[in-house]
Amino acid sequence: VILIVTPNPAVDVTYRVARQRVGTTQRVLDVARRPGGKGLNVGRVLDAVGIPSRAVLPLGAAAGRWIADGLDALGLAHVDIAVTGETRTTVTVVDDVEHPTMFGEPGPEVTTDEWIAVTDVIGQQLDGDVEFLVVSGSLPHRADPGVVADWVAAARMRGVPSLVDCPGGALLAAADAGATICKPNRDELLEATGADDERSGALQLLDRGAGTVVVSRGADGLAAHTRTGVTEVRAVPGVSGNPTGAGDAATAGLLAALLRGSADGPTSPTTPTPTPSTPRVDHAALRSAAAFGAAAVLRPVAGEVDVDAVRRFLADDDGARSGTRPSDPTWSHA
Amino acid sequence: VILIVTPNPAVDVTYRVARQRVGTTQRVLDVARRPGGKGLNVGRVLDAVGIPSRAVLPLGAAAGRWIADGLDALGLAHVDIAVTGETRTTVTVVDDVEHPTMFGEPGPEVTTDEWIAVTDVIGQQLDGDVEFLVVSGSLPHRADPGVVADWVAAARMRGVPSLVDCPGGALLAAADAGATICKPNRDELLEATGADDERSGALQLLDRGAGTVVVSRGADGLAAHTRTGVTEVRAVPGVSGNPTGAGDAATAGLLAALLRGSADGPTSPTTPTPTPSTPRVDHAALRSAAAFGAAAVLRPVAGEVDVDAVRRFLADDDGARSGTRPSDPTWSHA
Repeated sequence: VILIVTPNPAVDVTYRVARQRVGTTQRVLDVARRPGGKGLNVGRVLDAVGIPSRAVLPLGAAAGRWIADGLDALGLAHVDIAVTGETRTTVTVVDDVEHPTMFGEPGPEVTTDEWIAVTDVIGQQLDGDVEFLVVSGSLPHRADPGVVADWVAAARMRGVPSLVDCPGGALLAAADAGATICKPNRDELLEATGADDERSGALQLLDRGAGTVVVSRGADGLAAHTRTGVTEVRAVPGVSGNPTGAGDAATAGLLAALLRGSADGPTSPTTPTPTPSTPRVDHAALRSAAAFGAAAVLRPVAGEVDVDAVRRFLADDDGARSGTRPSDPTWSHA
Repeated sequence: VILIVTPNPAVDVTYRVARQRVGTTQRVLDVARRPGGKGLNVGRVLDAVGIPSRAVLPLGAAAGRWIADGLDALGLAHVDIAVTGETRTTVTVVDDVEHPTMFGEPGPEVTTDEWIAVTDVIGQQLDGDVEFLVVSGSLPHRADPGVVADWVAAARMRGVPSLVDCPGGALLAAADAGATICKPNRDELLEATGADDERSGALQLLDRGAGTVVVSRGADGLAAHTRTGVTEVRAVPGVSGNPTGAGDAATAGLLAALLRGSADGPTSPTTPTPTPSTPRVDHAALRSAAAFGAAAVLRPVAGEVDVDAVRRFLADDDGARSGTRPSDPTWSHA
């Protein structure tokens, strides 16, 4: 199973209004409320293609109970750690004219003892049937980024590969602890490292100890950086829609490819043969990430993909390359 | 006790941001969450001046539980009727520059059976120690305004006076059922009746069966309309701040004055002597409403008043009128 830690889950609320306007009272025409947080988006996309995952979540108060109930309703496995502070809510306001406006609460202050409880739960889970550890999303207000390093180290100690998609200090801490894959988007990479360009930022993370740095570039595709070179794929062309959650779907696509093992050739002649616990992020894996990301853009809400579109994008891609139709990818039957 | 029905309670959320701007992602700097809805505001203000009330609330799902817990924490008595739909949330966004932006969810769809349960509870309560029935705030999405008429009729049948501060069809239904006091603000009155001016709108409600129509006019004070005339008071001058909830505080001030019985003279020579179950809205009652409303403007959140300010405003007013200092009003010891 893929163990997915969401350090700062959220109740994601979307309000549709007739027309956004500051300083007015706006009747909400339609309300959508769903369990949110980047890690939960990854888990929901994996679930859509039949790959089991288990969420680890610090949850607090009424909003926390709401998320637990919501995950039960979705049939997603989760292990909750009770915290005193109230789990955050994010409110996104949309209309048919303006760009969406997003209000993000900082999240609860999680105590040191509560983080220890989270780390204990992750350790217990890693002693079980975990194939990959994923840590995704921001940390709550004033949390020590070092907790992410503890989780990565716990996985590494047990030979379990890890993927970390966190901003800021948590990304640096994950690299320091030797995360198998760091997966920021380009802006997050530059912000966390203070680098002027993507390659320099990726090299900083690699120097700190990251195995591979996968950078999602939105409409500009994805890149996998190792110390020896860069593997790049373009985004699926001609796809437009809602980019929210596309990066999380790309993470799910990457994991789906890594778990089914790729028959694709090496990304560069100098890439070393990976050990079982250090999956190689090759062209095929990046293409899978791009296909999932594009298929998420076609859906109006984060945490969902158009599964048929994933198949189509991978087939088109494969057909364009080899002239043959691929067999159904393994993830669709896992 | 004052029985206060809030047909569509809400979790009132206030987000402070650096600067409101449509189409951006905004970090919420500060979150306040409180049990809301106009009736609950009235109850909290009454509680602040020592007047007991009991809230009747249809509450649903996680947001409903949150409100029940919140009222327990505030020490406010409440009788809850469980409904299936989720109780609504309202989000108000504030900064130091722009006017606040308010997003109001429509609220749950309450079923006919659930409304019958609410009406049953109100009837049981009215058979007890209720001195006044208050119905305050909007009805949820697609609710039949006739439920308010049922509640007013239930009170009237038992000789309990009623005050209704609801918009739209519910206000008309309350008047039809013979509400003792209809208390809209001026905009609500004109919108509900379709009248061009306040007096015409008030006369419509009086013709339908309302005993008195009290209209709050914001900075222009308050007016009590009967068929025979109008009693008016000015707003307390020189008060600025947050007008949200000022109308609810005015309702509380009106009730406080009516319950302690006023020694003030009649509002107009033709006003008939009220029976015990039809309290007279005289100058003193309106002045109390104005003082409470102004004292609410001084507080940053709805449902609170500056109690010292209420005393000061009433004293100033009384002093200005009679040249003497008043004794402490009864409500401060009730």
